[in-house]
Amino acid sequence: MTPEFDVFAKDCPSREVLEHLTGRWGVLVLAGLREGPARFNALRRRVDGVSEKMLAQTLQALERDGFVRREVLAAMPPSVSYSLTDLGEATADHLLAFIDHLEAHMPAVLRARAAASR
Amino acid sequence: MTPEFDVFAKDCPSREVLEHLTGRWGVLVLAGLREGPARFNALRRRVDGVSEKMLAQTLQALERDGFVRREVLAAMPPSVSYSLTDLGEATADHLLAFIDHLEAHMPAVLRARAAASR
Repeated sequence: MTPEFDVFAKDCPSREVLEHLTGRWGVLVLAGLREGPARFNALRRRVDGVSEKMLAQTLQALERDGFVRREVLAAMPPSVSYSLTDLGEATADHLLAFIDHLEAHMPAVLRARAAASR
Repeated sequence: MTPEFDVFAKDCPSREVLEHLTGRWGVLVLAGLREGPARFNALRRRVDGVSEKMLAQTLQALERDGFVRREVLAAMPPSVSYSLTDLGEATADHLLAFIDHLEAHMPAVLRARAAASR
C-alpha cells in the first residue's frame, strides 16, 4: 500500500473508489467490458440481472473515476459505446483474476455452506 | 472461468458469493483479517467506519461461505476470535493485490475526476 492513500481509512478518497469498483455491479460491469466495447443494451445483456438504472449509475461513477470511456457514435439513430480506459483494463484484469479464483473455488464454498447448515 | 460456475449469470450461486466478498464491507474485512486473527472489536478498529451490525453480518456471511473461522476463546470474560481459513487467505491475497493497484492509481483517478468536473 502506498502511504498517501489507504482504503482502510473511512475518509480516504480511495474508499469511495473501492466502493464504486466493488459495489453491487462495479465488478461485473468492468469485467463485462473487458470482452470489448459495448453499447448500453449489449452490456446489459452481458451483466445478467442489472437494471437499467443501476447500470447507468454504475457506468457514470466508473466514467467519472476514469475507468470507463463513453463515446457517442455518429450512427442513425445515434448511440453510445462504452469501453475501458487503460486504467480500466488493468483494473478489470485484477477483477477477472479474482473472479477466476472465486469460480474455481465454488465447490469448496458450497461444501462449507453445507457443513454450516448441518 | 470454469464452465460450472459463472458470476455473470444472475442465478449462479457464485454471484451471491461475489457479493459477500465485494459487498460494502467484505473486501475490507477479509483484507483486515489478512494481518492476523482478531477479536471483534479489534477488527472493527482496523476497518474504520464499519458499524457493529454490518461487521457482524459480514463476518457471518464470510464464515458460512468458508472464508472466515470463528473461535470462542476460553478466556474470562469469554471472547471470540476471527481468522481466515486457507481459502480466505488466498482470497484475501487477491483482494490485497487489487487494493494495492487501486491505491497506487488513485492520482490518476483524482485527475480523471478533476477533468470530469471541469
